[in-house]
Amino acid sequence: MGAGAWGTALAKVLADAGNSVTLWARRPELADEINATHRNANYLDVALPESIRATSDHAEALASACTVLLAVPSQTLRTNLELWKGHLGPDASLVSLAKGIELDSLMRMSQVIAQVTGADQSRIAVVTGPNLASEIGEEQPAATVVACSDSGRAVALQRALATGYFRPYTNADVIGAEVGGACKNVIALASGMAAGVGLGENTAAAIITRGLAEIMRLGIALGAKPATLAGLAGIGDLVATCTSPHSRNRSFGERLGKGGTMQAALDATGGHVAEGVTSCQSVLALASSYDVEMPLTEAVHRVCHKGLSVDEAVALLLGRSTKPE
Amino acid sequence: MGAGAWGTALAKVLADAGNSVTLWARRPELADEINATHRNANYLDVALPESIRATSDHAEALASACTVLLAVPSQTLRTNLELWKGHLGPDASLVSLAKGIELDSLMRMSQVIAQVTGADQSRIAVVTGPNLASEIGEEQPAATVVACSDSGRAVALQRALATGYFRPYTNADVIGAEVGGACKNVIALASGMAAGVGLGENTAAAIITRGLAEIMRLGIALGAKPATLAGLAGIGDLVATCTSPHSRNRSFGERLGKGGTMQAALDATGGHVAEGVTSCQSVLALASSYDVEMPLTEAVHRVCHKGLSVDEAVALLLGRSTKPE
Repeated sequence: MGAGAWGTALAKVLADAGNSVTLWARRPELADEINATHRNANYLDVALPESIRATSDHAEALASACTVLLAVPSQTLRTNLELWKGHLGPDASLVSLAKGIELDSLMRMSQVIAQVTGADQSRIAVVTGPNLASEIGEEQPAATVVACSDSGRAVALQRALATGYFRPYTNADVIGAEVGGACKNVIALASGMAAGVGLGENTAAAIITRGLAEIMRLGIALGAKPATLAGLAGIGDLVATCTSPHSRNRSFGERLGKGGTMQAALDATGGHVAEGVTSCQSVLALASSYDVEMPLTEAVHRVCHKGLSVDEAVALLLGRSTKPE
Repeated sequence: MGAGAWGTALAKVLADAGNSVTLWARRPELADEINATHRNANYLDVALPESIRATSDHAEALASACTVLLAVPSQTLRTNLELWKGHLGPDASLVSLAKGIELDSLMRMSQVIAQVTGADQSRIAVVTGPNLASEIGEEQPAATVVACSDSGRAVALQRALATGYFRPYTNADVIGAEVGGACKNVIALASGMAAGVGLGENTAAAIITRGLAEIMRLGIALGAKPATLAGLAGIGDLVATCTSPHSRNRSFGERLGKGGTMQAALDATGGHVAEGVTSCQSVLALASSYDVEMPLTEAVHRVCHKGLSVDEAVALLLGRSTKPE
């Protein structure tokens, strides 16, 4: 459900693994293009298996689907699910591919799914990891996490997604799998800012490490297992997002670092905002309601929403008193 | 003790933090150069504080030293300590800066120090983290770990090393601090190999994550705390070494990946071997004696010492059966 880059990449993985796949696209023109050309040129320009059938009719897409992958942006998931919920099969697996915390409710995506559809936790799963869609589309080797509280369902999903180039690992910790994905873009903004002001690789590694530490604090407060965040869904996804030159959040952070302020970065990108700029708000609000300290996230928030300059943010972070790790 | 890049960088940090510093260099010419020019042009070409006094006389360097930083290569530490042990003060802190596992004994550096000097564990400390010497020399911000079982000594060392640009965190877990540093170069070789054969960022992130997992398995078997390896001494140092274009191990791995075999890589580097090529032997032997599975380290070992091609190694790693993370 969703024919952006990531939804299309996973449709290809599922088809390559031998499943029958229907890909829902919001716009009928896009569904037509995919059916006619077996490509999705604007989002993921690779040859798609001809067995993938695209449609813009959600009822048709959901009819008799035993596994429903939800690949719409996190802040639109609730609205979409309200439209779709009447068409979901009573035992269908509901798999979140969206990374984020809902702004008003501060809910994780699996919580939004449970609340809107009334589905039991055992039916809700999360797929997450260091997975650039473009590389998956090119069949480059990648590993991912399939998290579900029901181990039988996790293993079934793992098999449904396993191909020669895509390697899923099961995990029972849905919370951990979601927290890593929701927080990483904010830390990637911080990494970009540091690179933008000319700081080097020691700083970059320290930001990733201290970023992981604050993500772990939040995760543990919410009930996640540390091992999940030390794995693909946590450190793996964080490293990929913080070091990749293809990461939009890292690049936006670099512009912030070079320009020094939010306004300068927005001017440079024609007003185009990176995801972490939004999600630092919901992540920080969630952390604050659980009394968790997230100094990097807070610094990013102050730069993006409170007018702090990047130089001031760096001075602030370095000025913290020395203490045990 | 040791005027290579890292020993020189830490001498500068100590002097900048207000300590009186003597820097021992093996070659008298180098000690003379440092005293005359206040630079160490061949190892770390930055202006050094004029208060640093260099000498090639180890007895002079060690006389009345309350803190002794050991910055010689790991495989030479034992021989050096045998010469130095009669000159160490009875309560001097002995701080290991060397990263590695001794080849024959399979000992960590702190164990070598304890065995040769007879010093109590409470006097032995480790400084480790994502710290490129060249960046520290330029006073770029960096964080590091000071590990010592004696918390009082750890805090004293933390203060002795704290400057505006260098930020030490204390940790009681000496084993964890050492295991991370000893294993990272092997994983950096694997990262380089993957990049060399053209694999992308999903693979890179998966290698770092799975590499951390096997380092954690070894660490836990040896008595390390998982939190140490999830911190600067583990994931921090690993990320820096695996992603930095300045990392010799990553670069050597890339040559291996491009050439396909050890012989081709050696031809390309004029026979110059990276550290991970040696340390994969001691790390793998240690893992094997503790019955710990380290598939990445084993693959690197087979490429470096058993004639396996990089393509075969990649196929082998991807072919492992799917399982829980």
